[in-house]
Amino acid sequence: MCPAERNDPGDPASAAVRVAALLTAFAPGDEALGVSELARRTGLPKSSVHRLTGHLVRTGLLERDGSGVRLGLRLFEIGQLATRQRGLVEAARPYLADLREATRNTVHLAVLEGTEVVYLDVLRGPDAPRLPSRIGGRFAAHATAVGKAILAFSPKSVVDGVLAAGLPRISARTITAPGLLRRQLGRVREEGLAYEREESGPGVVCAASPLCGSDGTARAAISLSGWTNRMRVERVAPAVRTAALALSRTLP
Amino acid sequence: MCPAERNDPGDPASAAVRVAALLTAFAPGDEALGVSELARRTGLPKSSVHRLTGHLVRTGLLERDGSGVRLGLRLFEIGQLATRQRGLVEAARPYLADLREATRNTVHLAVLEGTEVVYLDVLRGPDAPRLPSRIGGRFAAHATAVGKAILAFSPKSVVDGVLAAGLPRISARTITAPGLLRRQLGRVREEGLAYEREESGPGVVCAASPLCGSDGTARAAISLSGWTNRMRVERVAPAVRTAALALSRTLP
Repeated sequence: MCPAERNDPGDPASAAVRVAALLTAFAPGDEALGVSELARRTGLPKSSVHRLTGHLVRTGLLERDGSGVRLGLRLFEIGQLATRQRGLVEAARPYLADLREATRNTVHLAVLEGTEVVYLDVLRGPDAPRLPSRIGGRFAAHATAVGKAILAFSPKSVVDGVLAAGLPRISARTITAPGLLRRQLGRVREEGLAYEREESGPGVVCAASPLCGSDGTARAAISLSGWTNRMRVERVAPAVRTAALALSRTLP
Repeated sequence: MCPAERNDPGDPASAAVRVAALLTAFAPGDEALGVSELARRTGLPKSSVHRLTGHLVRTGLLERDGSGVRLGLRLFEIGQLATRQRGLVEAARPYLADLREATRNTVHLAVLEGTEVVYLDVLRGPDAPRLPSRIGGRFAAHATAVGKAILAFSPKSVVDGVLAAGLPRISARTITAPGLLRRQLGRVREEGLAYEREESGPGVVCAASPLCGSDGTARAAISLSGWTNRMRVERVAPAVRTAALALSRTLP
């Protein structure tokens, strides 16, 4: 947000940006936030926060909760209409549910957004570890099987962008060397399968496969995650690949 | 939206309301919408729509798509943080998945909002009919099992509000007589189970049970839906009730 926008509250640009700043100020785990906390997070004056939250409560985008406000059910409803991948989520659901049922482990559907994956769906399996992934959550793409599956079937410029941004270490086993990641993506391209072995956190392994459009580039990926000592990724990988291929064929 | 707000574009109230109007102008099934269509749906001048959508694209709440805009992935992410019931969705997932697996029919998690239910989660079963319900979608509460399950365990004022708004006929079998609905809600209170028999549409039956807090009022309900001629609601009802009771105990 540029200072000029902040200094002219009557400018519609400023107002749109302020509304966006308020809505994006909430983080996972937040319940209601008060005016002071919202002012601190957004850098907006308390008087503006007070006024704008009042208007947003009337629209249903925010809801009052005690002395603060929380994100409204209306936002959840709009959010469900929001993804370009909405059709993808609907199409993927039965395949994800079948994979979960057949393996009792946790399945994910994710898309790439910049250097991160965004989870569009997560179905937790009864035998799987409690993973930090959640629907609408993000994770560093290079440290996940879904991220590597999508990157392997993305234009060179996308991969270059991820490498240029650096490969932060998420766990002791995260791949942080660009050359190593490039070589691994080459193997993923050959097999149609990406693996993650404790690269996002200890004790977890994962197998992923891309959902490719007719042009051969990935629009998303699905994965199966389990405990290192309980799930053999090589054994479940064919099921993941098969589901991804079948699902890719059904995509419009 | 009152005319005074529309006529003063510099007023932050106006801006917040305009942003909300633009975001809520999208409907299920919409892909990108152009400036003219958004102006038509919101009643805002084209010039305002053009300017505001430009700002909203920069915040990531909207995304460009050809000559129009669509709701952005960022909105999906915020929406996932939005529900007061987020904890509920997470808590319910394993129970819903188990019910689906055990019955091969479609499970729902819904909350009441005014006279409608809003679906927080839908897991489609392989043997179930293709229902119009979708995550984030709404349906007339009195015509659904989840709606009746919640209403039966809601304060009298909530039920009175639904009856006062009228009971629109959704299908040939929708309960439209207030007295009949009241009597049925009494039975639901006794059994902890609500049924729907082709009241939302032909061929579909459904059994639902409320998720009650420690004060005995319903926060939500879960249900199981199937084909009239393939799923015996009386047979699956105990499983739905059992899952609802177990899930209610885990709620914070």
